[in-house]
Amino acid sequence: MGLSPAFPYKLKGGVHRFPPGRLNTICDVPGVRVAHHSIRAPGENIGPHAVRTGVTVVLPGPGHPFREKFQAAAHVINGFGKSAGLMQIGELGNIETPLVLANTLSVGTAFAGTVDYMVRITPEIGETTGTVNPVVFECNDSQISDLRALAVTEEHVLRTIEEAAAADACGDAEPLEGAVGAGSGMVCYGLKGGFGSASRVVTLVGMSYTLGCLAMTNFGSLSDLNVAGHAIGDELARVVPKPGAAPERREAARPSERPDERGSVIIILATDAPLDSRQLGRIARRAQSGIARTGGFTDNGSGEIACAFSTVNRIAHDAPPVPRAVELLPESALNSFFAAAVSAVEESILSSLEHGQTTPARHGGCIYGFSDAMEMLTKGNT
Amino acid sequence: MGLSPAFPYKLKGGVHRFPPGRLNTICDVPGVRVAHHSIRAPGENIGPHAVRTGVTVVLPGPGHPFREKFQAAAHVINGFGKSAGLMQIGELGNIETPLVLANTLSVGTAFAGTVDYMVRITPEIGETTGTVNPVVFECNDSQISDLRALAVTEEHVLRTIEEAAAADACGDAEPLEGAVGAGSGMVCYGLKGGFGSASRVVTLVGMSYTLGCLAMTNFGSLSDLNVAGHAIGDELARVVPKPGAAPERREAARPSERPDERGSVIIILATDAPLDSRQLGRIARRAQSGIARTGGFTDNGSGEIACAFSTVNRIAHDAPPVPRAVELLPESALNSFFAAAVSAVEESILSSLEHGQTTPARHGGCIYGFSDAMEMLTKGNT
Amino acid sequence: MGLSPAFPYKLKGGVHRFPPGRLNTICDVPGVRVAHHSIRAPGENIGPHAVRTGVTVVLPGPGHPFREKFQAAAHVINGFGKSAGLMQIGELGNIETPLVLANTLSVGTAFAGTVDYMVRITPEIGETTGTVNPVVFECNDSQISDLRALAVTEEHVLRTIEEAAAADACGDAEPLEGAVGAGSGMVCYGLKGGFGSASRVVTLVGMSYTLGCLAMTNFGSLSDLNVAGHAIGDELARVVPKPGAAPERREAARPSERPDERGSVIIILATDAPLDSRQLGRIARRAQSGIARTGGFTDNGSGEIACAFSTVNRIAHDAPPVPRAVELLPESALNSFFAAAVSAVEESILSSLEHGQTTPARHGGCIYGFSDAMEMLTKGNT
Amino acid sequence: MGLSPAFPYKLKGGVHRFPPGRLNTICDVPGVRVAHHSIRAPGENIGPHAVRTGVTVVLPGPGHPFREKFQAAAHVINGFGKSAGLMQIGELGNIETPLVLANTLSVGTAFAGTVDYMVRITPEIGETTGTVNPVVFECNDSQISDLRALAVTEEHVLRTIEEAAAADACGDAEPLEGAVGAGSGMVCYGLKGGFGSASRVVTLVGMSYTLGCLAMTNFGSLSDLNVAGHAIGDELARVVPKPGAAPERREAARPSERPDERGSVIIILATDAPLDSRQLGRIARRAQSGIARTGGFTDNGSGEIACAFSTVNRIAHDAPPVPRAVELLPESALNSFFAAAVSAVEESILSSLEHGQTTPARHGGCIYGFSDAMEMLTKGNT
Repeated sequence: MGLSPAFPYKLKGGVHRFPPGRLNTICDVPGVRVAHHSIRAPGENIGPHAVRTGVTVVLPGPGHPFREKFQAAAHVINGFGKSAGLMQIGELGNIETPLVLANTLSVGTAFAGTVDYMVRITPEIGETTGTVNPVVFECNDSQISDLRALAVTEEHVLRTIEEAAAADACGDAEPLEGAVGAGSGMVCYGLKGGFGSASRVVTLVGMSYTLGCLAMTNFGSLSDLNVAGHAIGDELARVVPKPGAAPERREAARPSERPDERGSVIIILATDAPLDSRQLGRIARRAQSGIARTGGFTDNGSGEIACAFSTVNRIAHDAPPVPRAVELLPESALNSFFAAAVSAVEESILSSLEHGQTTPARHGGCIYGFSDAMEMLTKGNT
Repeated sequence: MGLSPAFPYKLKGGVHRFPPGRLNTICDVPGVRVAHHSIRAPGENIGPHAVRTGVTVVLPGPGHPFREKFQAAAHVINGFGKSAGLMQIGELGNIETPLVLANTLSVGTAFAGTVDYMVRITPEIGETTGTVNPVVFECNDSQISDLRALAVTEEHVLRTIEEAAAADACGDAEPLEGAVGAGSGMVCYGLKGGFGSASRVVTLVGMSYTLGCLAMTNFGSLSDLNVAGHAIGDELARVVPKPGAAPERREAARPSERPDERGSVIIILATDAPLDSRQLGRIARRAQSGIARTGGFTDNGSGEIACAFSTVNRIAHDAPPVPRAVELLPESALNSFFAAAVSAVEESILSSLEHGQTTPARHGGCIYGFSDAMEMLTKGNT
Repeated sequence: MGLSPAFPYKLKGGVHRFPPGRLNTICDVPGVRVAHHSIRAPGENIGPHAVRTGVTVVLPGPGHPFREKFQAAAHVINGFGKSAGLMQIGELGNIETPLVLANTLSVGTAFAGTVDYMVRITPEIGETTGTVNPVVFECNDSQISDLRALAVTEEHVLRTIEEAAAADACGDAEPLEGAVGAGSGMVCYGLKGGFGSASRVVTLVGMSYTLGCLAMTNFGSLSDLNVAGHAIGDELARVVPKPGAAPERREAARPSERPDERGSVIIILATDAPLDSRQLGRIARRAQSGIARTGGFTDNGSGEIACAFSTVNRIAHDAPPVPRAVELLPESALNSFFAAAVSAVEESILSSLEHGQTTPARHGGCIYGFSDAMEMLTKGNT
Repeated sequence: MGLSPAFPYKLKGGVHRFPPGRLNTICDVPGVRVAHHSIRAPGENIGPHAVRTGVTVVLPGPGHPFREKFQAAAHVINGFGKSAGLMQIGELGNIETPLVLANTLSVGTAFAGTVDYMVRITPEIGETTGTVNPVVFECNDSQISDLRALAVTEEHVLRTIEEAAAADACGDAEPLEGAVGAGSGMVCYGLKGGFGSASRVVTLVGMSYTLGCLAMTNFGSLSDLNVAGHAIGDELARVVPKPGAAPERREAARPSERPDERGSVIIILATDAPLDSRQLGRIARRAQSGIARTGGFTDNGSGEIACAFSTVNRIAHDAPPVPRAVELLPESALNSFFAAAVSAVEESILSSLEHGQTTPARHGGCIYGFSDAMEMLTKGNT
């Protein structure tokens, strides 16, 4: 749903001239479905062994993703990350599985669960045809959730994919945004992060296309936060208490001026515009500009990846070697998509903050939600 | 000199915590020298055949650049551009000539002029050793200057390099910033662009390093402009008159929502920190974040290139194949340089605007300077 | 051990001027260890559900790989593959885990098993420091082994890593080359592939360095095979019977002249020469030339990846942000390593063929070993 | 014309199964035209100041290259080179000018000459539309020709482009292959190099496509030469006298085992198959395999670049932002083009050798032609 009318700041500037879609989420792109599966330790669930993690699945469209692949591109903004599947996207320009998001140490499990699912629905894989390329994205949620517990199982992954595939529409069961699924334990600009989403409608010569963004946000220092042109991070950093750090770490703070933040951000861009892999790659490269508008500078320890796909011009797995007709927008259409992407990325990140609620940190204290933090600021200023 | 105390907005947010160097320009990096040569048509110099262009040279350090090369990296943010020499920087991780900046159609001339200079000072080139890799950057200044006049000559290039090489210090003869040299005809966010510069001092464990930035700015639409967190572009776009367009173009406006802007921006980052080519590449990739902080979204037609080099750990051309000792900062130092680079790029771009003066456009009307535009805004608001 | 004296052809040409190391395998590089774990279905083990697969681990050196990382680079020759971990190698230029090789659908399991191992030996991961980047390579062994059986378990992976870590020397338990570990089910140029290895000693100004190669070979069509300059593939293709194909596939042969081969090849290059990530990347890019010398043209369906690492100049995980001294060879040393790499890759691939034994194919018939095939050729020619 | 029937070796192996086109040159691709302009010093023309250089132009098709651009891709095998224009090919996937080849220090002049031509035939450049991206390739011909004489002028470039544009057919005036145009002073595997060309016809499901290759060869050491599977380089190196070296160089031979060769090779691939930029890039990446088949290992000092373009699906410069219909071959067609490209590259390189004639070297002695060298071998063996 993007930013609510209650959000204290308004997005301004030329890149924001494209209107949102009906829902103002990635689900405005026809056929795209998202399913979250949140995993919580039973009981009180606080302290070093708390578990607040999960799995999130983005289904890029209806039908069989392997037999009818999706034009796609991935761009690595900063490669301190463990995402899987990007190499083949780069070579072939397509996606042939659901996209799975999880925490960093669960990438292998998410890959294996995706293989389970794909092998099940595709008997020809490994028999009469080749193999399949799972695409997995990750962020490190260890400030809130016990990463070493390896709480995500192949069963979780399999079930979340099936749920996404069975859904009539996007995000029915759980809310799309906030601390759900893989976003459960994420921390963004020192505040509670998770998922945020937005969409833009681009109209060119009477034809309308939708571009949607889903961001999993887990990056940045509070002092850097810039909300719709307001550099409120510095002020917030003065009033918002910091969470506890793991015991040894407290003493061994790195002596650099800007220590590693260990965060990451995953940006998924979907569109129904007829664009090819090279063009989608150009759109994906604009994600860095959207991130920067919220104040982030893509720190050393951040795995920042953008992935863009189109839901049209799908590619048959068994296409015979004869020319096929496709319709493609020319480069002169791209500026509109570039601006729309920057705008949707910025709003998605801010929306992930608006949807965050104050949550216990694993080593004491809290990761505050944006609204609680803003209240502290208001009180602190009075 | 970066932004003056009179600039109406202050830079805020965490990335701006590193202090500027003494001059707050790229010249704070010891050994770096910049020379501009401005070219103007004689006489009245307005109208379609006006010439306001030039050549700018950045000498990355003292001594012979070919015999003692510089660790370097280049990053292509958007490759709609004609810069030369980047391929070899990518393969070998070094720079072996002065960096030359000019307008787009003069890249060949700038290349040839650099060859002239290098051949002259290096008799072994093409005889007992191989060839040389000129590095040339460009932007399209055709809104202000007659690009088709091909006003830049090899002689201009050669002389500007010699001037840079002979200078005791950086930027003695002409001001470093503003509409000088290759920046003479540049247009940034619809206002007068050109050169801007800034520097940051990074102190790590008691050792200080300087990172300097020189930006040649020629990109962006006015409505996108964001100054230090203030999205004033939309308001300015309402009060600042647009310049004339070339005759045919007026009728044939592109029907897309966001037409191509045809701009470009070149970001040169210099440092005396001991960093290798891979690390310098990581710093160069942060230039996009600095650009985005001023509101730009890197449009389709923009050639946006960042080049970073270090003035230490120079590489002997004729090094024998035995190990040589070098000192290198580890990755844990990089976050400070990343933040410093984003900050210096942002300030350099804004400084190029502050230094811009209202200038006649080639097809009628003016490209307004930032201060004139702000005055219109103030008047318009009262 | 590379090619045996009994091999019917001799390597000729300028690139082969560097002598092999003592063992003529990757184990000549001090500290490198390799462990194979072969997995076989119990009983008769023929037919569609035969299992001949496994896990192979390359430990890049002694000590803790995460706390003392290795300079490294990866190069994608053709990205139709599912290898994991390459993105972070590209960004940071290092390897911090054992390298694990397995079949294509087991990449997730191999990733998860590596996480298990690394978390176990590194209590600070996910607590006081960040996460870890498993590196996994794969080929598709479905001509010989039932890929869909998902026979590799995390336990297999964990145990193989532990075996490698416990070994005094390289390849004690199982032979290093041939159809072992992950190479069990590989098919190369239509003949039995698997692992091959070779090494070269490069002496520069009195100092000697070793470059070792380990190849997992699973690519190519028989008619393309070129052995040491002898294009014997065409002749072999006339006499060597083809294995059966999966039922549906028989009828639905692709109508293109050159159908997809679905193979892959993984090239691991290790050296004790002091080279940095950028230089190792340049060496890795020569792997394609070594592959091409054996006749391969890197087909559409082939995942061809090269990874090169150095065992010296290791990088402390917790290095403070101060300069550290490293010794590095200059670019003038590289030609020797380039030629040595091309030579070692060529010999490794041929050695994998020499070590291959005739093996039942999953859908009937056999994948013939090189010596059996050569015997057919001799007989066919008489 | 590729290799003549008189050539002493036959190409063998699976990659050579595609038949050549009618001429067996790049000119078999309809619309492609090549023009050479050879430059020679007047008079005796031997010794250090001899000039044997030139300009070569490849026109990728009929009509206006800027107004109707060509799908294209470039691949850098080894980036020790000065080619211009590759960055924009990478971003936009197209070529919009003739391709110009020259010696290394003339890249700037070739760029400027191309600008002259394009500005002349395209009044809208720099006025109502943006600028233009010249594409220039180079090799270093200093063993035969005085590079420092800077003998190529803008006028030469302009005239050669005009000649290509005016030609009815390809290569009417001068022979296409051998020591002509930019290939005049090239040295390949220590023998006389220059231009070589070949073509292949790929037939898929009843439709035929042509892939043509033009190679400018200036790389390799004689001992590495491998002709159609025959590693004759070592034997030739024993009988063929070496040319003289520049005075200082004789004493200061580099102490490495494999000194830098300073060569380069440019591979231009043209096709009338409907392939997009990403697919053409995949074909271009196979050039390395073709080079390796002749024995080269892509040495440190070699600028090895491949550029592939398609003559169909041309892209209008002023395309409005609405979908346009294109026909594209799917990935299943690519293997045939990959094999054809490897084969055509191999034959083009060998053909450049077959067409080379013994030529005086600049510092004494000769660069021998292949047939003279083979004669020495025959005599030496008897």
